[in-house]
Amino acid sequence: MALKTPEEYKESLRAMRPNVHKFGQLIEDVTSHPSTRYTVEGHARIFQAQHEEEHREIYTTTSHLTGEPISRYLSIFRSPEDMLANSRMKRRTFQLTGTCTGGRCAGWTAMNALYATTWDIDDAEGTDYHQRLLEWLKDAQSRDITMAGALTDPKGDRTKAPHQQADPDMNLRIVDRHEDGSLTVRGAKVMICGVAAANELVVMPGSAYGEADADWSVAFAIPRDAEGITIVEARHPSDDREAGCSCDDDFDLPVKGGGITQAYILFNDVHVPAERVFMAGEWKYTRNNIMYFIGPYRAAIGACVAGQGDVMRGAAALMARANGLDEKVFTDKLNQMAINNETTYGMGIASAVMGKPHPSGAWLCDPLLSNVNKVHVARLPYETKVLAQDIAGGVAETGCMPSYVDFTDEEYGELLQKYLGAAVDGETRARIARLVEWLTIGAGVPGCMHGGGSPDGAKMFVRMFSDLDGHMDLAHDLAGLEEDVPRPERKK
Amino acid sequence: MALKTPEEYKESLRAMRPNVHKFGQLIEDVTSHPSTRYTVEGHARIFQAQHEEEHREIYTTTSHLTGEPISRYLSIFRSPEDMLANSRMKRRTFQLTGTCTGGRCAGWTAMNALYATTWDIDDAEGTDYHQRLLEWLKDAQSRDITMAGALTDPKGDRTKAPHQQADPDMNLRIVDRHEDGSLTVRGAKVMICGVAAANELVVMPGSAYGEADADWSVAFAIPRDAEGITIVEARHPSDDREAGCSCDDDFDLPVKGGGITQAYILFNDVHVPAERVFMAGEWKYTRNNIMYFIGPYRAAIGACVAGQGDVMRGAAALMARANGLDEKVFTDKLNQMAINNETTYGMGIASAVMGKPHPSGAWLCDPLLSNVNKVHVARLPYETKVLAQDIAGGVAETGCMPSYVDFTDEEYGELLQKYLGAAVDGETRARIARLVEWLTIGAGVPGCMHGGGSPDGAKMFVRMFSDLDGHMDLAHDLAGLEEDVPRPERKK
Amino acid sequence: MALKTPEEYKESLRAMRPNVHKFGQLIEDVTSHPSTRYTVEGHARIFQAQHEEEHREIYTTTSHLTGEPISRYLSIFRSPEDMLANSRMKRRTFQLTGTCTGGRCAGWTAMNALYATTWDIDDAEGTDYHQRLLEWLKDAQSRDITMAGALTDPKGDRTKAPHQQADPDMNLRIVDRHEDGSLTVRGAKVMICGVAAANELVVMPGSAYGEADADWSVAFAIPRDAEGITIVEARHPSDDREAGCSCDDDFDLPVKGGGITQAYILFNDVHVPAERVFMAGEWKYTRNNIMYFIGPYRAAIGACVAGQGDVMRGAAALMARANGLDEKVFTDKLNQMAINNETTYGMGIASAVMGKPHPSGAWLCDPLLSNVNKVHVARLPYETKVLAQDIAGGVAETGCMPSYVDFTDEEYGELLQKYLGAAVDGETRARIARLVEWLTIGAGVPGCMHGGGSPDGAKMFVRMFSDLDGHMDLAHDLAGLEEDVPRPERKK
Amino acid sequence: MALKTPEEYKESLRAMRPNVHKFGQLIEDVTSHPSTRYTVEGHARIFQAQHEEEHREIYTTTSHLTGEPISRYLSIFRSPEDMLANSRMKRRTFQLTGTCTGGRCAGWTAMNALYATTWDIDDAEGTDYHQRLLEWLKDAQSRDITMAGALTDPKGDRTKAPHQQADPDMNLRIVDRHEDGSLTVRGAKVMICGVAAANELVVMPGSAYGEADADWSVAFAIPRDAEGITIVEARHPSDDREAGCSCDDDFDLPVKGGGITQAYILFNDVHVPAERVFMAGEWKYTRNNIMYFIGPYRAAIGACVAGQGDVMRGAAALMARANGLDEKVFTDKLNQMAINNETTYGMGIASAVMGKPHPSGAWLCDPLLSNVNKVHVARLPYETKVLAQDIAGGVAETGCMPSYVDFTDEEYGELLQKYLGAAVDGETRARIARLVEWLTIGAGVPGCMHGGGSPDGAKMFVRMFSDLDGHMDLAHDLAGLEEDVPRPERKK
Repeated sequence: MALKTPEEYKESLRAMRPNVHKFGQLIEDVTSHPSTRYTVEGHARIFQAQHEEEHREIYTTTSHLTGEPISRYLSIFRSPEDMLANSRMKRRTFQLTGTCTGGRCAGWTAMNALYATTWDIDDAEGTDYHQRLLEWLKDAQSRDITMAGALTDPKGDRTKAPHQQADPDMNLRIVDRHEDGSLTVRGAKVMICGVAAANELVVMPGSAYGEADADWSVAFAIPRDAEGITIVEARHPSDDREAGCSCDDDFDLPVKGGGITQAYILFNDVHVPAERVFMAGEWKYTRNNIMYFIGPYRAAIGACVAGQGDVMRGAAALMARANGLDEKVFTDKLNQMAINNETTYGMGIASAVMGKPHPSGAWLCDPLLSNVNKVHVARLPYETKVLAQDIAGGVAETGCMPSYVDFTDEEYGELLQKYLGAAVDGETRARIARLVEWLTIGAGVPGCMHGGGSPDGAKMFVRMFSDLDGHMDLAHDLAGLEEDVPRPERKK
Repeated sequence: MALKTPEEYKESLRAMRPNVHKFGQLIEDVTSHPSTRYTVEGHARIFQAQHEEEHREIYTTTSHLTGEPISRYLSIFRSPEDMLANSRMKRRTFQLTGTCTGGRCAGWTAMNALYATTWDIDDAEGTDYHQRLLEWLKDAQSRDITMAGALTDPKGDRTKAPHQQADPDMNLRIVDRHEDGSLTVRGAKVMICGVAAANELVVMPGSAYGEADADWSVAFAIPRDAEGITIVEARHPSDDREAGCSCDDDFDLPVKGGGITQAYILFNDVHVPAERVFMAGEWKYTRNNIMYFIGPYRAAIGACVAGQGDVMRGAAALMARANGLDEKVFTDKLNQMAINNETTYGMGIASAVMGKPHPSGAWLCDPLLSNVNKVHVARLPYETKVLAQDIAGGVAETGCMPSYVDFTDEEYGELLQKYLGAAVDGETRARIARLVEWLTIGAGVPGCMHGGGSPDGAKMFVRMFSDLDGHMDLAHDLAGLEEDVPRPERKK
Repeated sequence: MALKTPEEYKESLRAMRPNVHKFGQLIEDVTSHPSTRYTVEGHARIFQAQHEEEHREIYTTTSHLTGEPISRYLSIFRSPEDMLANSRMKRRTFQLTGTCTGGRCAGWTAMNALYATTWDIDDAEGTDYHQRLLEWLKDAQSRDITMAGALTDPKGDRTKAPHQQADPDMNLRIVDRHEDGSLTVRGAKVMICGVAAANELVVMPGSAYGEADADWSVAFAIPRDAEGITIVEARHPSDDREAGCSCDDDFDLPVKGGGITQAYILFNDVHVPAERVFMAGEWKYTRNNIMYFIGPYRAAIGACVAGQGDVMRGAAALMARANGLDEKVFTDKLNQMAINNETTYGMGIASAVMGKPHPSGAWLCDPLLSNVNKVHVARLPYETKVLAQDIAGGVAETGCMPSYVDFTDEEYGELLQKYLGAAVDGETRARIARLVEWLTIGAGVPGCMHGGGSPDGAKMFVRMFSDLDGHMDLAHDLAGLEEDVPRPERKK
Repeated sequence: MALKTPEEYKESLRAMRPNVHKFGQLIEDVTSHPSTRYTVEGHARIFQAQHEEEHREIYTTTSHLTGEPISRYLSIFRSPEDMLANSRMKRRTFQLTGTCTGGRCAGWTAMNALYATTWDIDDAEGTDYHQRLLEWLKDAQSRDITMAGALTDPKGDRTKAPHQQADPDMNLRIVDRHEDGSLTVRGAKVMICGVAAANELVVMPGSAYGEADADWSVAFAIPRDAEGITIVEARHPSDDREAGCSCDDDFDLPVKGGGITQAYILFNDVHVPAERVFMAGEWKYTRNNIMYFIGPYRAAIGACVAGQGDVMRGAAALMARANGLDEKVFTDKLNQMAINNETTYGMGIASAVMGKPHPSGAWLCDPLLSNVNKVHVARLPYETKVLAQDIAGGVAETGCMPSYVDFTDEEYGELLQKYLGAAVDGETRARIARLVEWLTIGAGVPGCMHGGGSPDGAKMFVRMFSDLDGHMDLAHDLAGLEEDVPRPERKK
């Protein structure tokens, strides 16, 4: 039972209390409702992969806690090799599903961050958070759960700390601490991927906090359907294509094996049992906790983006063929797409390799390289999209084709099919064009720019970790300077 | 009556035969149907502007045929100043409507191309096309019509000429020539903007043809609702937001005063009266005709794109404020957006100024500069979009917010509004975020990349017009070379 | 005598007092000394052009003061057409000389700025500077002089105003005002192009000054060899190639008809006669004076850079041929070079056309467009250089070839010639490679980045002139917002 | 004696036969002649480093042949860790010397390529090349030699193979095979770095050859001063600053501890003893041999370029300070420089880690990632240079300052020093400006673009290794296509 099948996974979702809403309605069954079924399919693909010969080595590993085979998404990164496997898995998952399976990667990384953080807290404060986390994790591994990571708070006024906000709920907080160590929490986590496909949520502070923000310094794991949790899914570019997919052949929604959801999770005085609490006021550790998250997340996201680029590259080349053009015509552009993909992939690999171990046994990626990668991730995939649209032509650029319903209309459908044909028949060409649209300006576009933090935030870390003083020393010595060149006093 | 009001314009549309379809259904009234009303509103804004003090100088001019005041969109470009006015008008229109009003610019430019082409044909062949066009134009001016331009053929196999296609209909063609000079035409024009908002269509060949393609060398103007014309609108990213707009306050569709449509126009043996035929077999002139179109179109499209960028820039800065950040934080990015906008605008101005007159009195833009501009238009607005998303943050990047329906939900709507608030209330912030989404990855994104031809096509012209031989001569002379440096024989 | 010949021009230089130094030595004759003769040749080329049929229309115009034919470099810009002619002339001059002829363009533009500024001062203050300038200009036209523009002060501590500097000489200043209206000035102007080739200097403040800086607010024209002026030429990358040019055939210095010099001009208590003083304390007008300079300078510099790019493009294509490769192999790169060239050229044209008249009759270029162009000028030619090196291959990239002396060595010269041969003989190929080196990393590289001010300064103007408030209003209206979105209070 | 000191190294150079020429003259002592002493100093710095505590771990390793401590530059890459050490060493060496020490890296990498290639040849052909190489290498390690790598042939007509050239010498070739297995070779290797600083040359074919090119398929190691070898050094941008360096303080040559040389090596019927021959006609292995070279070379060159960027970054920030500006003003640009540096560094790391072992025990880097890195290396450092010049201001951009001689001139030297001062004194500021000049447009600019092969060649490999077919399959499956989308037949 440690490695569920897709059907067992879906069964686990159906067994949960319905608490996901969209368009003012409660979704009774996330595995079949059009707004959530595609993301569930994407996540289910992972459960399938862990039973496939070709994928087992990537998708599963051995628990260092129990020695049992487990989903890699429930493992602790303990070596560069673990991080390389993370990158390989992320790239492959995007290739298989054509999209983000956010209900796994953020939760996994958050859990890994807490693995190191709880060790730090216990080491300094004599608490037992780390042991709690290990117990919970062992159980999670045995249940083979899917867990979304919930970091982003609404934040309110971005120039103010949590305790300074007019409304203290703008960041998730402890409203009550109970004798048994359990907590009551209130607030929200917003724009969270893959929530509908998740069994549990791993919740941690979205930022580094100060002493006055102790009540906001809270981390825990909780079932997605716990009492008091209300989830509202965000509206997407093409909700209607999902909702109204007229039949299995309806290619207006070209990809049926994956989909993105992003949720607003409302915590209305939610009770968190003590054994699931991993931080409760220890504000000092919030800074490192974020760093522990950012390192592996920003390293491996480059692989996710590379997988995305692989699919765009293939789709663009297919479209060229469908238009009657040899893909060689576009060699330069296809090369540039490959260069973009390999750059975000490679930088993640480098960040992993140049990392170092944490006393807990966790592996910490190199913070400079992972933040450099985040900056690339906020630009290169956008260039790749532009190149895909450039190669694919006008019909794909904005998905400029009539609907599937029109395509099969009795009166004029045949003519549309005729006129959409080129080197292949009209339907095949339209299907590929819809895929390019979906990947570049449709429902398949993930939030790379700000997902896992903004590029401007990453640049702040680039500045911090890139040793400008050391570089000035190099120049100073090379130029044979004898006098010091001090920092000028600030211009008033 | 030469300058219609918005209401008169809408009335003229309502008076037409319904022949526009979407989702398998005939649209009875394009001015009120959710799929077409927004583009009609955008076009109506132009009719309003021509009566506004502030805009009259831009939107109207004097007919050189009749001396009457007319819509600038029905005038002939006869000087650099006319082209500058074109650029100013295009930029302003995008600013006013937030989007493309494609039912005017392409038709206008096509008519101008035919103005020069018909002069050329008559001059060499002794025909009377030019006079026909003048008569039709005078009438069009007096009726103050809106006309879409229809150039793009389905094309079929892109490596073959029209007469080589397996199906001769893949490019619009003459199937019958009648004694009275009228024609019967068959085929399609595809991905045509603003058709639903147009009274007439200006149709011309989408490419340069050879002798064997004489039957495909056909140009004319025709009412959009002529017998035999069937129109099917393309599906868009957010059809449902238009279709399902729950109320006037529903900001999931943030812009109500403009919208894009792109149509497939099917010509099923359509009869074209002789007086509306402007080319009928004169294949020799198709090459210049395309050049006459490309020059002003690719010059002025930079202004359109600049207007688009102005709005994105403003929206991004507003969003920064809404997030609680002074726009100064983003000065570099806002500067880059301005640089992009002014570059496509300025290059269009330069192309106009460096042009030259055609014997017909038409003004021909500089082909090198206008094609350079097309290349910029295929890249810079995409960078501008990325910058807008970068500044605006995660909530705007993919429009990551619940629907308006959820926003007003009784159970949890209030909480959503609370958590979306920052420096401004939740609704205001969400409205701005929806605008950024709409402009950068939503229904407001026009097809800049391939609209008016692909960037690769433009690069072909850049090569042709950029005088590489002359530049080699310069280098040859500067280096003081005496011997010739010939072109190497082609590698086998 | 209003249009000198090259020989008359050189004669006028020889007639001047020697006051130019390099390498610790006084240059007796700037027309023959290896450190200055090449720049003199470049400037002489302009005197030749004004007598050539092909170039007369570009290089000469009619004085609006006297109606006589004059060098365009001594004219006032009074219309967009004058500015277009400026751009055409700048581009052509770079094409003819392969390099910067800085002794003309900056002086000319400074004189034009002072034309408007003196009008402003007189208009408000009742002075007679404008008349003085007109008198001086008429005389300058009749003598057909070459004049360098001197704006850049040493500046000292860049965070302090002139009057705040520890040493008041760090910006050129009035040290004495005499009864007859004449002045004594002290200080320096640094990094000034083409001084050795100039008859006179047009001197003006390099920045906008405040009231306390009145003594630094000084402008005048003065013979380059006036008493008290000492000039020291800057060292260049390849001084030795100029100095040691072993014979006329020595192609280590590939271009003999042009060259760059940049001088430090030391003003050691120099006397300026009253009739040559154009500003003496009127600090209020320094800001506009700079704007009057920046407008046309940053517009037209794009044409200069385009000419530079034309030559690099030709040289790279020649080198491809010399290597045995058809230039078609590099079409994409050659196109990009053309796009870069036309962009800086076109933006200057646009800035000119979108300008407006000054009450004095001067034509003021559009400040937004000219500053956008400055930003392009600080990036695009560098990309063009990289492309030239990319196309030309390793031998040209760093000029990686033995010296001409080795090339003609008795022992091994023949072997070097043999091994450097490809599709053309070794000498021809080496000459072209040296030209690419010279243009991209040698003595032919002008200071585009900071010449005429830094790109960061230009961006400040882009911000100032690009109407962000207006763009926010557009977005505000399109989104249908009712409430105001105020600027957040500054984060402390 | 296995780890020489700098003095022992220089002694070994002085003991060699003088055969290096420049400016028509034979250089008697490369360690003291101004044209070669700086590169010798750079290489000597490495010999110093291997004795420094701080650097020993980077610069030395253990011979897998003898177990003795050796210079890392004489080791075999046998693991990813060896390649990481290579990258670290390359970056550090550039930091220490401010420039390229090309006499070590190319020779080292060539020797590693031959390590694998000789194994392949022996394995298939029963030869004993690998054993020869091991013996030679053991000896080289014990002598602690410096060896330059010589790959680039003159090539002649680039569209023809070696045997098709009009002159067969255009690629280095075997002109005689002797009974004892020794060879006589003729031809040249051109543009070779660090030759004057090298004890030996490692020579191998510069390209992949076919059967008819067997006589050109030759590899060997040979003393740099062997009979018949004549070396001519290439001319550089600032030979005169090296040659005429007026005193140790003369900062016109700002860096005295390193320098670049590039030589033309003429092989005039040179005899190569059998035990130094590593390939003699086995054309089949030339393709893989090049790949074995390209892999590690293009991976690690990114580290070299990163070190170059580190120094430029430090120099630019120092210059900002010297100008009186806090480096924070340039945070964005300094960040971009860091991002460029870390990208080429990181991609090399990734290429190493994603590699795989060769049966010989050599480690083969990932060819896709190393070629992607080569493309970055041909662009990013150029952007870094532009940023350095942008930050540093006009005085540094083109090194726009008078010579050191003028700087110390009795008459005006003091004034120059005064006027060059800003936040620091004039000399310090000038020294830093000269360093920026030297690094960005002076003698310190290495040939990154084409060194180790051209970016266009690298793109060919990107295309080859980036699995476009696999990506099309992904897209095909995601779009649910049933029919095949074949490659269109080539347009005639």
